[in-house]
This record gives sequence, structure tokens and C-alpha cells, in this order.
Amino acid sequence: MADVVPSIGLVEDLAGPQHPEDSLVNHSEGQFFLNEAFKIIVDEVLNKGTDVQQKVCDWKEPEELAQLLDLELRAAGEPHHRLLERVRDVAKYSIKTSHPRFFNQQFAGVDYHSLAGRFLSEALNTNLYTYEAAPVFVLMENEVLRSLRLLIGWTEGDGIFCPGGSTSNMYAMNLARFQLFPEVKSQGLCGLPRLAIFTSSQSHYSVKKGAGFLGIGTDNVILVKVDDGGCMIPEDLDEKIALVKSQGTVPFIVSCTAGTTVQGAFDPLDRIADVCEKHKLWMHVDGAWGASVLFSKQHRHLLKGIERANSVAWNPHKLLLAGLQCSALLLRDCTGLLKRCHVANATYLFQQDKFYDLDLDIGNKSLQCSRKVDCLKLWLMWKAVGSSGLEERVNKACLLCRYFVQELKKRKGFYLLHEPEFLNICFWFIPPSLRGKEGNPDYQEKLVAPAIKERMMKKGSMMVGYQPLENKVNFFRMVVLSPLVSQEDMDFCLDEIERLGNDM
Amino acid sequence: MADVVPSIGLVEDLAGPQHPEDSLVNHSEGQFFLNEAFKIIVDEVLNKGTDVQQKVCDWKEPEELAQLLDLELRAAGEPHHRLLERVRDVAKYSIKTSHPRFFNQQFAGVDYHSLAGRFLSEALNTNLYTYEAAPVFVLMENEVLRSLRLLIGWTEGDGIFCPGGSTSNMYAMNLARFQLFPEVKSQGLCGLPRLAIFTSSQSHYSVKKGAGFLGIGTDNVILVKVDDGGCMIPEDLDEKIALVKSQGTVPFIVSCTAGTTVQGAFDPLDRIADVCEKHKLWMHVDGAWGASVLFSKQHRHLLKGIERANSVAWNPHKLLLAGLQCSALLLRDCTGLLKRCHVANATYLFQQDKFYDLDLDIGNKSLQCSRKVDCLKLWLMWKAVGSSGLEERVNKACLLCRYFVQELKKRKGFYLLHEPEFLNICFWFIPPSLRGKEGNPDYQEKLVAPAIKERMMKKGSMMVGYQPLENKVNFFRMVVLSPLVSQEDMDFCLDEIERLGNDM
Repeated sequence: MADVVPSIGLVEDLAGPQHPEDSLVNHSEGQFFLNEAFKIIVDEVLNKGTDVQQKVCDWKEPEELAQLLDLELRAAGEPHHRLLERVRDVAKYSIKTSHPRFFNQQFAGVDYHSLAGRFLSEALNTNLYTYEAAPVFVLMENEVLRSLRLLIGWTEGDGIFCPGGSTSNMYAMNLARFQLFPEVKSQGLCGLPRLAIFTSSQSHYSVKKGAGFLGIGTDNVILVKVDDGGCMIPEDLDEKIALVKSQGTVPFIVSCTAGTTVQGAFDPLDRIADVCEKHKLWMHVDGAWGASVLFSKQHRHLLKGIERANSVAWNPHKLLLAGLQCSALLLRDCTGLLKRCHVANATYLFQQDKFYDLDLDIGNKSLQCSRKVDCLKLWLMWKAVGSSGLEERVNKACLLCRYFVQELKKRKGFYLLHEPEFLNICFWFIPPSLRGKEGNPDYQEKLVAPAIKERMMKKGSMMVGYQPLENKVNFFRMVVLSPLVSQEDMDFCLDEIERLGNDM
Repeated sequence: MADVVPSIGLVEDLAGPQHPEDSLVNHSEGQFFLNEAFKIIVDEVLNKGTDVQQKVCDWKEPEELAQLLDLELRAAGEPHHRLLERVRDVAKYSIKTSHPRFFNQQFAGVDYHSLAGRFLSEALNTNLYTYEAAPVFVLMENEVLRSLRLLIGWTEGDGIFCPGGSTSNMYAMNLARFQLFPEVKSQGLCGLPRLAIFTSSQSHYSVKKGAGFLGIGTDNVILVKVDDGGCMIPEDLDEKIALVKSQGTVPFIVSCTAGTTVQGAFDPLDRIADVCEKHKLWMHVDGAWGASVLFSKQHRHLLKGIERANSVAWNPHKLLLAGLQCSALLLRDCTGLLKRCHVANATYLFQQDKFYDLDLDIGNKSLQCSRKVDCLKLWLMWKAVGSSGLEERVNKACLLCRYFVQELKKRKGFYLLHEPEFLNICFWFIPPSLRGKEGNPDYQEKLVAPAIKERMMKKGSMMVGYQPLENKVNFFRMVVLSPLVSQEDMDFCLDEIERLGNDM
């Protein structure tokens, strides 16, 4: 190809077929390909990928996997049959997160209504910034946010979908800071006093990440003590706030957690709200994991006091199975704080002379410009099963979790870290050779979660996470949430850990 | 439902069918639904939605649309036939961004390979933080980033996919700040001197949003002058940096633009690199829109000097048709700056006693925790058409754009704002009644882009954006990029604006 800028005379080069059989994108060939790919997705991901007779993961060492996938991108394209093999390979070697033996994270399972909504969102390729560009989804996002707020107990308020709970938590920090010091948006932190954030020692790491990113500094995240169950101790919060104030630092937000990542603990929101009111601090609830419990009349007491918060982060992509990413930030504010804090008045997008209500151009509330539609999948699933169906799923997960705990207690060598409050079950497995030797000096080092995890992954039978916590050595963290999971899977999990670790 | 916490004795309540016919999620019913939804998606979005005989948008006033969609979420679920009607309605009333007459934003069109990759990503529901959780995509993301870096001219470096170009730009700011003041992560901005960011007056609004969010302040974004074409003037940059320094403020980053949002201008990167080197400043290139030109041997001269940058934001979801969201931040750094800047050492995810190379746990580089897979769609499309196919698309878009300009110049009443350098064509349409009256005092107010836009939307024939810019009144901004678009569509666009505006 010649290295010259084409003159206008060159436009005749554009000859060739016009629609509908354009040479660069051919609809009928493309749709045939898409159809074939769809069949492979159903076969590999949704059938084999959810079959307990099949592996959760087909473990490969990185070098081997790279070779199998032939990842290199080249100048020439490839024929469709080769691409379909690639679709199958990608599916084959990926982790089956919808498999009934996937207990590794705070998401699992598949909901077909949500998945249909996700496919539709992808096909529409809508960018959610203005009513003009996204009429359906501007209205739908508002309605979904309204419905989530109602579950919190707020009949009015504001909100937005964010690319994940970490971002939602960071939005909350930025809003709290802006409410206290509106000039921070234009002038920055320079000249302001040192600011401080309060959160429990078991809160999500995004609070620290956010403090770093927002220019507040991770050292200015003050970690409040927790009780044995991992719940924030309000008295310690109150004391730490007073101490920080006495040092001339300005506290501006308390980030509580409803469902901690490791233990699934719920901070005592009502009592924390008292402390926040006393000190006039923004109360944020990171309910990324636990807020979905609000659907359950039986269990929503865990979040008592949440309606007193200023903001809530809630990830329906976790417990509700809406699919990644689906993360709402909800606000009690009705004064347009979110928009004032983030608006940048881009004239190419948010023209002021449009022929419709400019409040519908919700992109002004976001830090993002291009923003995916994350509400449709949740909306369609909610329409499909109703609030009552979502409640039933939450209740089922809680029951399954209790079943697991009950069975675990019957077995030798299994010890709970703490009686679970929610869907995270943290436990040690002590292999036979170590039982009764708890006094030995090398006892702790020998605990075997990483070794069992390695065997589990290489066998592909199951996935469960593990980790240490403060002075506690590695324990398993089992997360039970998918409605596709049965008591049989719970039994299998305990059996399998014994099988994998009994010779250690 | 009783408002009591279930005792362990209640686990027998969990009776009911086990897999494979679980009562809460039924695979065969679910897959039947998904199949039916898939057919509707193909029909409404990919067939009708790309047919020039069909509307780009079926405009409804918000109240009417809300009623048509019946958005309210209720306690009870709905049967599948009703849900399928909803799938069709959502598609019907959404903007058809793949329609050949959609010229409204910097994305358009559909690529079926990418779309297959997107469906597969959604079905797999992978969370991209560790090798354990996402073996295929950790390797794939690295390879895609490597291939993009090679086009910049970097044989090594770093990078990550972000949820949009705004986030990528904010990452660059955070990295530049961290490199200059590593203590900022832990201690925050308190005690540091005032920092300043330099960018052109026509750069994307995310630079200011980022300055607000990162605690730097929008007033500390120093806007550098542009020439008539919208390109940053390096001499003004140099002077402004010197001035700011003399006032005791510390400059730390220059955010250049390769392909501005409105005019599609390319800042002179080579000359800006000289200024950055002179002042030892981080050079970031916001190539969200324009970096894809690097695929074209013919046009990549527009980005001459990009290899001298420290970071590049590049959105393959725009010109390359990868689909929202697909946004890479690319770094020349090889010292692990990205990880050091963002790592938070969450022990539940990034255990240090894993059985594989911990460098594969790339989540430590991200500000997000849960992170969607954004690389597969680009990878699969790239495999399908090769770098040469992507080059051909870029070249075709440039040719079409030139054709449009050539035809526009032949017509009465159409005036270019500036000879376009790229794929954005900014132009005024002066209706017959106003022609020759450019001297009249009310001439400017009568320019008619918003009125034509309203008619266009309500007719549904086409979508083109408009906006003012500095002292220039509203003009149309046409963006041509989809390989599904033909010369006929270009002619239609000009004809249609005449039809809609000739009586004004």
C-alpha cells in the first residue's frame, strides 16, 4: 500500500459492492457465524459447563495454555471454521463459573433471563449517556434504581450504575468529600486539611484503593476494630473519630460493610448511623455483596439501619446472578449532588438546546463518558422471576449454607472460623496426621489449604477459595449462592476436601 | 414468610428436585428462552436494525415510552411469552447503532466476530483478576495489549483494559502523579504543592472530570491553545508550563489528544514530546478515538511521535467496532509502575502462596476488583480479519469521509467548519432563506442544527450530532466509520439534511 495521503480524486477506489452485500462486513455470512458460535456457547458453557460430570476447570500451565490457544494476532484473517474452533477452545479452557461446584467467588451460577438481557445489550451496543442515544435504557436504569432504593426504604433519591463495586465505593467517597467541601472539585485538595475515611479492618480493599486514587492517601483510611465475627465495633469507631479530630484531621465518611468479603459479616448499621449522626459524617454502606439480602423478608434484619445511610453500593451481579458487571450506587440525596459533583458540560453530548427534558441526559452524573448498559439484564431477570423469585433465591442460598455448616460440624477435622452470619463459610480442614497435635510448634505452618487447592484445581473437580486473616492461618472460604446448587453439591464439597487432603 | 432466623433444624425445608431439573433455574426451559430471545435479537437488531428501509430510531416522548415499556418491577414473575415481547420491545424502541444511517457518535456498525466474542464473554461470566479465575483471559489480555503496543512501536511495556477511555485517562494521571510523588499513594495530596495538568482546549472532558476526582481540581487543568484545526499549539504549551512553574505549581502530565472528539484533530505528538522532554513531564496520549489509525500504513503518520509517549488510551470499541466497552490503557513503562501504583494486596484474592507465577494475577494492576473481560471480542475479531482487515476498514472510513466532503462542497448551503483531518466532518447547513444574509445581526441565532436534529429524530431517518464550539454556533458533526456504510449513505445524509431544513 502506497504511503501517501489520498487525494480527493481517489474516492473512486471505493468501488465495489454496496449494501446489502458489503465486502467488509457481510450480514448473511456474519449471522451464520454468529449462529454457529451461539450453538457452541450453549453446548460448552451452558450444557457441559453446568454438568457435574464435567470439570469446573481444565487446568493448564500458562505456557501450555498459551500454545493451545495460539493467541498471536497476525496480518491475515482466518476462515470461519477455524474461528469456531477458537470459540470452542476459549470456552473449554475457561473456568466454568456457572458450574455447581464453583464456590470460589461471590458470584456463581447462571440466570437465562439475565443472559438474554446481556446478549441483547451487547447486540444493541448502546451507550448510556443521553436520552437521545439511549431512550429505553435511560428510563429503565431510573426504574431499576428506584426499585432498588425502595428495598432500602427510600421513596426518593438518586443513583447510577458503575463498572463494579470498587468504583461505586469511590463515587461515594467523592460525593461525601464534595458535599463537605464543594470547592474541592475546582480547586483540589491543595490547601484543605488532611481528610480521613473510616472503615473496618475487614472492609473491602477498594476503600484503600479509592483513598489512593482520590488523593486522600491510604494512610488516611482509619481501620476500625471488628469483633470475632468481623463486624465493626461502633465504640471503636466513635473513639477513633474523636482521636482523629483532636489531631486536626477532618473525618468525612464512614464506609460500613454489609457482607464482608471474607467472613460475610454485617456491620451494625443502626449503631454506626448513631455515630455518623453524632459526628455529622457521610455514612456509606458497601453492600456490594450483602445488600441483595434486602429482597428477603426473613433475612433483611441483617441490614437494619441501612435506610439511615447516605449511599449504598449494591452489586446485583453477585448474589442475584445478574452477571458481570451490574453494580449500582444508590443515594438518599434528592438535591442533584451526583450531577453537580460530576457534571462537565460537554457541549458535543449534553447540548442545552435539545428538544426534550435535559434531566434525562443522565451521563452528566457519571465519571465515565462511554458507559455500558448494565440495567437491562437485571430488569429482565426481575421481570421474569419477580421480587418474590429473587427472595426465594436468597432464602435458598441461606438454607444451603446452613446445611453445609450442619454437615461440616458432623465431620472430623473440619473447624469453623466462626459461625457464619451469611453465605461465606470460613473453615479449616485438619488432615488426620495433624489432628490432636495443635500444640506442636510447626502445627500452623502445616495447614494445608494451598496444597488442597492446588490438587483441586489440577483435578478440576471443584473451586473454593482460601486465605489467611490477621493472625489466623490459611482457611477455606466457601461461598454458596447459586440456585443451581444442591445439598448433594454441599456433601460433595466436604467429601472432596477429605479426599484431597486425607494423606497430608 | 415468618420473620425469624431459621434454625439449623429447618434445612429439611430445602427439599425439592435436585439437578438437573432444579426448580429455581431450569436449564432446558432457560435455554429454550435464550434461543427464542436470540432469534428476536437477530431479527430486530441485526436484520431490521441494519436495514436502510427501517428507522434508525422510533422516537417516543419519555412518558409514552415509559408506558409502552411497562418498566415497573413487581413481586410476581412473568411467563416467557410475555418476556419475549419485552425483549422485542426493548430492541424496537432502542437506537439502532449499527444502522448505516447512524453517524451520531464515535462508534457505529457491527462486527459479527466481535459480537460472538461478546456473547461468549457474557456466557462465561469471567472475572478477570487472577490466573486461577481467568486463565484464558489473563493470557489473552496480555497478548492483545502486546499487539496494540507493537503498533505504537513499543516492543515492551505494560497496560490494562479499563471501563472506558475516561477511566484510562484517569489511570494515566494517577500513574504520572505516582511516578513523581510515590508517597502520594499513602499520604495523599495533603502537604504536596499544587499540581497541574496540561491539555488542549479541545481535549475530552474526562481530563477535567479526572482532575476533580483525583483531588487535583479542575482549575488546575491548564488549557493549551489550539490552531484552527483543533490541534494543540506546542509553543503555547511550553509557555504555559513555564508560567505555571514560575508560580510554584508543579506540572506533572501533558494529556495530548489523537483524534479530538469534535473536530477529529491530532495534536502534533512529536513536537509535544519535545516539550515534555524539556520539562521532564509525563506525556499521555488520549487516542481513544484516533489511535486505531495506527493500523493504517497510509494514515498512521497522523500519530507520528506517539512512541515517545509514556501512556496511550486506545478504545477499540470506537473505530475498530469491537463493541462497548473495549478500552486499553497502554504504558511504555517496564518497571511495574502500574502494579505498584494500584496494588492493595487483598489476601483473599492475591494469596502469596499460590502454586503458579503470581505475576499472572493481573488484578493487582487495576483499580477495579470485579473486572469484565473486554479483550476476547477484540481478539476474535482481529483473528477473523487480521491486522490487514482492520487496516482496510480504517482506510475505507477515511475514503468515505473524503467522498462526503467532496460531495458536500458541491452543494449549496453546506459549509465546512474546517477541512477534516480525520473522520469527523463538522459543517453548517444554511437553509435557502438565510443564504447571503450572513451579515444580518440575527443570522447566527437562526442557524438550524437543533431544529433539523429534532425533525430527523422524530422521522427516524438518520442520526447526526450537532454542537457549538467556542465562538462558533451550532454545526453538525458527522462521524463516518462503519464498514457497513456506503457512498449511497453519504449522499442520503446530505439529501436528508436538505429535505429536513430547506423550509427553514
